[in-house]
Amino acid sequence: MTIQEIRIKNVQNVIRRKRTDALYVSAIKNVRYLSGFTGSSGFVMITKDRGLFFTDFRYKEQSEAEVKGCETGNEKGNRISLLRRLVKSLGIKRLGFEASLPYEFYSLLKGLPVTLEPNPNIIENFRKVKDETEINAIVSAVERAEAAFLKVKPFIKVGARERGISLRLEEQLKREGCKSIPFDIIVASGENSSKPHAQPTEKKIGKGDFVIIDWGGEAEGYYSDMTRTLLMAGAGLHEKIKIYTVVNKARQKAVSAVGAGVKTQDIDRAARETIKKAGYEAFFGHGTGHGVGLDVHEAPRVSWPKGDRVSDGFVFTIEPGIYVPKLGGVRIEDMLILKGRKGRLLTSLSRELEIIK
Amino acid sequence: MTIQEIRIKNVQNVIRRKRTDALYVSAIKNVRYLSGFTGSSGFVMITKDRGLFFTDFRYKEQSEAEVKGCETGNEKGNRISLLRRLVKSLGIKRLGFEASLPYEFYSLLKGLPVTLEPNPNIIENFRKVKDETEINAIVSAVERAEAAFLKVKPFIKVGARERGISLRLEEQLKREGCKSIPFDIIVASGENSSKPHAQPTEKKIGKGDFVIIDWGGEAEGYYSDMTRTLLMAGAGLHEKIKIYTVVNKARQKAVSAVGAGVKTQDIDRAARETIKKAGYEAFFGHGTGHGVGLDVHEAPRVSWPKGDRVSDGFVFTIEPGIYVPKLGGVRIEDMLILKGRKGRLLTSLSRELEIIK
Repeated sequence: MTIQEIRIKNVQNVIRRKRTDALYVSAIKNVRYLSGFTGSSGFVMITKDRGLFFTDFRYKEQSEAEVKGCETGNEKGNRISLLRRLVKSLGIKRLGFEASLPYEFYSLLKGLPVTLEPNPNIIENFRKVKDETEINAIVSAVERAEAAFLKVKPFIKVGARERGISLRLEEQLKREGCKSIPFDIIVASGENSSKPHAQPTEKKIGKGDFVIIDWGGEAEGYYSDMTRTLLMAGAGLHEKIKIYTVVNKARQKAVSAVGAGVKTQDIDRAARETIKKAGYEAFFGHGTGHGVGLDVHEAPRVSWPKGDRVSDGFVFTIEPGIYVPKLGGVRIEDMLILKGRKGRLLTSLSRELEIIK
Repeated sequence: MTIQEIRIKNVQNVIRRKRTDALYVSAIKNVRYLSGFTGSSGFVMITKDRGLFFTDFRYKEQSEAEVKGCETGNEKGNRISLLRRLVKSLGIKRLGFEASLPYEFYSLLKGLPVTLEPNPNIIENFRKVKDETEINAIVSAVERAEAAFLKVKPFIKVGARERGISLRLEEQLKREGCKSIPFDIIVASGENSSKPHAQPTEKKIGKGDFVIIDWGGEAEGYYSDMTRTLLMAGAGLHEKIKIYTVVNKARQKAVSAVGAGVKTQDIDRAARETIKKAGYEAFFGHGTGHGVGLDVHEAPRVSWPKGDRVSDGFVFTIEPGIYVPKLGGVRIEDMLILKGRKGRLLTSLSRELEIIK
C-alpha cells in the first residue's frame, strides 16, 4: 500500500466508527496529506470504501502525476453542484466535514440532502504523528535551515541592517534547496527584539543589541522552525546576559519535561515556572511551542490552555522567550521529536550565549 | 479623518442599514484594511458607533504603532470568553460575522447570547474599490515586478533551468523593495507550460519551448500579478506562433471590453469567444481574471459563473491562456484599473511575441 492508501484507510476506520458515510476534505494541506496533491485547489471525498480526488482544469496534468490512492475526477463548474451529484451517486446520507470549513461553504453544504456532521480536526489529529517519510523530510528541512543560517551568521554584526540579513538568509535557504519558506523571516534587533513577531526593518544592528533570528526551512513540503538570539558586544550587558540565561534554562527544562504520555501543558509549565521564578513572568506572553509539519504551525499546541498527551512521532517546537520593552528580547527555539518514548532534539545549532564582537 | 476611520464609518453605515448591532471581523486582511494592523492575529469589533481592535501579547507594541481609528485592547486567554464579555459590555444583541469564518469558530459564536447574522463579503465588497493610497501602492507593486522581470529576462534562454530563473526573479523582487511575494513564482517551459499552475522544476529550457513566467510584486502590503510567455527559437514554431497570437488577441478583446458598469462575465466572454473562434476553447479552462489588492486573488472574479459590474477603482487582471498538452501553453496577464469610466492598463511590459534566439 502507498502511504496515501494507508492514510485513507485510517480515515475510513474513523468514518465507520463514527457511523458516518463520508468525509469531505478541502483544507489544502489535508488534501495533500491524503492524496499527495501539491496544488492549491482540490478536494477529497472519503467514503467507507472509496477515496475520490477532484481538482480543476489548471491542475489536471499535475494531479495525474501526483495523486496516489484515490480515484480522480475533474471539477468543472461550481463545487456544490458536483457535491450534490456525488452524495447522490455514492449514496451518502451522513456527511462529515472539517472544522476549518469556511462558514460560507458550510451554508451551501446545508442545502444538500444529507445530515452534516462536523468532524473537528480528524485529519489534523492523524497529522500529529509523523511517519518515517515525513520525519525524513522534516530532518532535511532542519538541515537546510541550519546550513543556511551558518552561512549567513558571519554577516550578523553591528552595522548590518535587519532587512539585509533576512534577505540573505532567505536567498540562502532557497539555495539549500527549499522550494518555499514557511513564514517571513524575523530579524529583530535592539528595541525591535522586544516584539515577538517583529518584521525586519532598515534598522542597523547596534552595539549591545540582542538580535533575534526566527526562520524555517522546507523539504518535500514539510517545514522546520527555529530561533536563535545573538548578543552584540557593548556596555552594560549584565541584565541581558541574565535574561538569556533564564530563557535558555527555561528551554532546557521544557525539553527535559518531554516524554511519552506527558501533557503539553506540563511542558509549557516547565518553561513558564523557570521564567516566573526569575521574575520575568510578565514578559513571556506566548505559548511554549507548536507542532510542525505540512503547516509550520499545527497540532499539538504546547501551551497553557488545552492539552494533548505527547505520543511517538510528534514533532514540535520548544520556544520560550522573554521580551522587555526598550531593553530587548530573547527567544530560543528548538525542534523535537518524540521517538521511542524520549524526546530527541532535531535542531543541532548551539544554544550557548554568543557575544558577537 | 484617517483612511481607517473612513472605512470603519462605511462599515458602520452598513451595520445600521442592516439593523445589526456589530460586526466581528477576523479575516486578517480585512482586519488590516480596517485597522492598519499588519500582524498575523487579531480582530476588530465594529459597533454602530465604535471600532475596537484586539491582539495578543506578541503584537502589543506593533499594534500600538500601527492601529489607527480603533480603540485597542489586549487579547489574553481564549477569544470566545473575551467576545462573551464584549457583547455583554457593548450591549450587542445582533452580531454580524464574515462568510470566511471557520465553522469551528462559528460553532463557538453560536454559544453567545446573540443572534448571529452572516454578512458575506461585506469588507471584501468595500475592498474592491481602491482608493488613492491603495492605487499608489499597487502601481508601485507593478513597477517593482516589472523592474525585476526586466533585469532577469536576459537569463531566460535555452539551457537555463526553470528553478534557477524563479529564484533569481524572487531575489530581484526583494531587491526592488518587495517585503514578500504574493505566490510562488511560476516558470514553466516546454511541456510544463501546458500546466497552468506548474511549479518550477530543474528542467532546462529547450529549443522551441514556450516559457511562461507568472509572478507578482508587493508594496505597502498590496500586490501585483502578471504573466508573460516567451518563445525560444527552434524548428516548427508555426502552431505555437498561432496560439500566441490567439491568446494575445483574446487578451486585447477582454481589455477593450472593460468599461464602467460592464459585467465581469462579459469581459470573460470577450476573451473566451476569441479563443473559441480559433478552435482552442477546450484548452482554456480557467477564468479570465480576478481582483488584486491586499490579497493577490480577491473580488471581483472575472469569470463565467457569477458577475459583478465593474466600478471606478476596481483593479483586476486579464489573463487568458491556451494550454495544449505536450505542445505547451501560453498565458498573457495584465493588470487594469477602471478610472474615470475607462479601463487603464497598469502593466507596461510588452505583449508582443518575442522569439528568443
